[in-house]
Amino acid sequence: MADEKKLTSRSEDFSSWYNEVVLRAELADYSPVRGSMVIRPWGYGIWENMQRTLDEMFKETGHENAYFPLLIPMSFIEREKAHVEGFAPELAVVTQAGGKELEEPFAIRPTSETIIYSMYAKWVQSYRDLPILMNQWANVMRWELRTRLFLRTSEFLWQEGHTAHATPEEAEEETLLILGIYRRFMEEWIGMPPVTGLKSESEKFAGAVRSYSCEALMQDNKALQAGTSHFLGQNFARQFDLKFQSEAGAEEYAWNTSWGVSTRLVGGMVMTHGDDAGLVVPPRLAPVQAVIVPITRGDDTAAAVLEKSHQFAARLKDQGVRVKVDARENLSPGAKFYEWERKGVPFRVEIGPKDMEKGQVALARRIVPEGAGRKEFVAEDQAVSEMPSRLESFQTELREAAWKRREENSHRGVKTLDEMVEIIENGGGMVYTGWNGDPAVEEMVKERTKATIRCIPTEEFRSGSAPDRCVSGEGASTMEVAWARAY
Amino acid sequence: MADEKKLTSRSEDFSSWYNEVVLRAELADYSPVRGSMVIRPWGYGIWENMQRTLDEMFKETGHENAYFPLLIPMSFIEREKAHVEGFAPELAVVTQAGGKELEEPFAIRPTSETIIYSMYAKWVQSYRDLPILMNQWANVMRWELRTRLFLRTSEFLWQEGHTAHATPEEAEEETLLILGIYRRFMEEWIGMPPVTGLKSESEKFAGAVRSYSCEALMQDNKALQAGTSHFLGQNFARQFDLKFQSEAGAEEYAWNTSWGVSTRLVGGMVMTHGDDAGLVVPPRLAPVQAVIVPITRGDDTAAAVLEKSHQFAARLKDQGVRVKVDARENLSPGAKFYEWERKGVPFRVEIGPKDMEKGQVALARRIVPEGAGRKEFVAEDQAVSEMPSRLESFQTELREAAWKRREENSHRGVKTLDEMVEIIENGGGMVYTGWNGDPAVEEMVKERTKATIRCIPTEEFRSGSAPDRCVSGEGASTMEVAWARAY
Repeated sequence: MADEKKLTSRSEDFSSWYNEVVLRAELADYSPVRGSMVIRPWGYGIWENMQRTLDEMFKETGHENAYFPLLIPMSFIEREKAHVEGFAPELAVVTQAGGKELEEPFAIRPTSETIIYSMYAKWVQSYRDLPILMNQWANVMRWELRTRLFLRTSEFLWQEGHTAHATPEEAEEETLLILGIYRRFMEEWIGMPPVTGLKSESEKFAGAVRSYSCEALMQDNKALQAGTSHFLGQNFARQFDLKFQSEAGAEEYAWNTSWGVSTRLVGGMVMTHGDDAGLVVPPRLAPVQAVIVPITRGDDTAAAVLEKSHQFAARLKDQGVRVKVDARENLSPGAKFYEWERKGVPFRVEIGPKDMEKGQVALARRIVPEGAGRKEFVAEDQAVSEMPSRLESFQTELREAAWKRREENSHRGVKTLDEMVEIIENGGGMVYTGWNGDPAVEEMVKERTKATIRCIPTEEFRSGSAPDRCVSGEGASTMEVAWARAY
Repeated sequence: MADEKKLTSRSEDFSSWYNEVVLRAELADYSPVRGSMVIRPWGYGIWENMQRTLDEMFKETGHENAYFPLLIPMSFIEREKAHVEGFAPELAVVTQAGGKELEEPFAIRPTSETIIYSMYAKWVQSYRDLPILMNQWANVMRWELRTRLFLRTSEFLWQEGHTAHATPEEAEEETLLILGIYRRFMEEWIGMPPVTGLKSESEKFAGAVRSYSCEALMQDNKALQAGTSHFLGQNFARQFDLKFQSEAGAEEYAWNTSWGVSTRLVGGMVMTHGDDAGLVVPPRLAPVQAVIVPITRGDDTAAAVLEKSHQFAARLKDQGVRVKVDARENLSPGAKFYEWERKGVPFRVEIGPKDMEKGQVALARRIVPEGAGRKEFVAEDQAVSEMPSRLESFQTELREAAWKRREENSHRGVKTLDEMVEIIENGGGMVYTGWNGDPAVEEMVKERTKATIRCIPTEEFRSGSAPDRCVSGEGASTMEVAWARAY
């Protein structure tokens, strides 16, 4: 079996390691459709946990879900100039349907601003109809040449929020509210603390006035854009005639925002916590938080061990733990250990005849804490009562390790391009410099280092004392920026 | 406003009534894409409640969710002969992507048997890898000429389960397990009791060996096929090389099932419970089960009334009730009453200054029970403590009314075609007759009555003493069948 081969290590080849982890953990698989992947139950279960949490966060802040058509008339996409320039090269186009050539072709949605704002225009008459705060969970399609499982696929799953407001201030507030939700979700659920900030003009969303993003640093020191929140101004409202009568009686265009995160987050989770043994899933996202492996021999204790395993599972379940008994008969305990390790389940519980005699279980933690052994024998009752807090500690540990790694690989106060090149070429990371705001500098640095401006950090991520000169050496810095090579 | 116009009554024109209810309740709206609809938050909220419940039922019976590509290579669909014949006329086809003509076009999935079983073929080697019990929540596309909101749209949302088994017995058992889940869900959550049974050859799924369905009778006495569960035999396994090594060491093709319900269920709910005032949503599916309308006048009691309303809402929420305070300032209580009635919220709670003085609330039930007044004044504490049981009574009442209506419109033991024509042309309903199994009879009856065989009922729906002659008058009956005009 291919699985018996040792996993490529991260230091050896991070990219191969990533693909192998995704495939062997059965998160996803390649499909016969170029650029599209199959999300397998283990990967989809993680995505479902992400969805559930984000969905609650959106609803708590007044958003509602809806569903808009998959197909978008080509003429809609062409209406907003920057939008069509950005998306036209990536469209998949339906030209035939019901056995006939279509008069007007449809694009499979690459994102849904156009179709959604055309509907809002129908629903909104007065300021009383605002704000509209909607979200949709959907599949989208962007024809990509080079694809990577979860990170860049032609079809992917995401949520896209679309809001309409009476004032630009309210829309901007919404944009930042969502950016904060994304940040909190990434920190507390994925344990993947991002840097948040504004995109430079060259990197912003096609059609936006301003784009904000969450940028997380992976273990190979490349940044992953993990979520974006856009202030669209009135760009789409003007094209789709999304107008309202203001309280004062004037006719005005509405102000829009849009924002999204996708199954890409699963890839970010892999590259943040995985190790050379495979995947590590943060407890809050794990479809199974503790797997119970009954250690049965071919003797008459087997039935009792199995019964005890199910009892123990039921007790953990009562504690709110997501648990599974792996009772497969034709697989050795060793093979099961290996499989669940590869899949990144936080805790493995072994129960054998000797453990039963002693009223204990063997607890193996997917990640060994500093100075501790991997396996621990714990009294049964204690294992049950402590499991929720053990899971939370595991979660915290992952988050703190990721935070520490990000900070260790964040280089602040970098003054010159030479200094920056030195850092990028020797391990890389997130490099903070001054910038004069000139796109030509962005282009030049990119050519020299392959690093791009990930964002202009929001206040909490700015260095106390950023360089006062642009990293190019030309002119004063007008803002601090964070550079990195990126996915 | 269009909304001020009185709703068409059901007896006047059921079809117009249906469209108006769906639009005015803001369940859905027409979109600029021919045949595709927009599901608005109220409709989507109902669908989310359906999804949550069904998803739990699937998971409790061992199924896992996954996600497969939207696009299917045309050559895949062409492999299973009956399948391509059934679906080819309805396909939407992607012929261009990334700015180029594709060498092989893709169909947008009309259903996913082909792509899914091609993946199972990759994952299954031995009997140890079986069964595979997967489900996906997805959008699908079938290009329809005549569309109706929720009932028949080109794009719709559904779940499609796909399983693979080592034996035909196990696959058949799965098919019936799911049929039972669908029936229970329709009875207990939608309050829409279906008749279950086998489809005749002419009505079965393109590619199936046997198709079972749930057929529910709407208020206009037309049947709605509301869910199907198919035993696919080895038809797809043979085409996609889905083989396994049996325990005895032989190479065998797997046995498949597939099954689905869709957003069509929302349409069924509308046509089962709606009345001449608009929608009625069963409490178990209602996004809002009780809406609180503060009765404020422009005086200094307004703040207190609003506060009391929120307190009352919080107490209901603690009882597990989905509740909303409608605190909109620029809308009269009367306009709010009308809106929530149209949307079918089960209970409306009015709280005014006088109610506060008396420690009571006014409770208005969307459907008035036999011999009762619509509005009832109930002590505040009592209203809180009784709300869960009142909601359950409401649910039961809807279910029982639908059951009663179905039975009243079920005509059993119908012996001759003349008798059947008489029934179908005078109100219609579900007509049970004998059948000799000849497709020519099906065709003849259909031409004469526009009714089709909805199903060959499963045992619990068979009449005790079905006619022993075929309804055509020709030959003995070999089975009892249920006929109706259908959506």
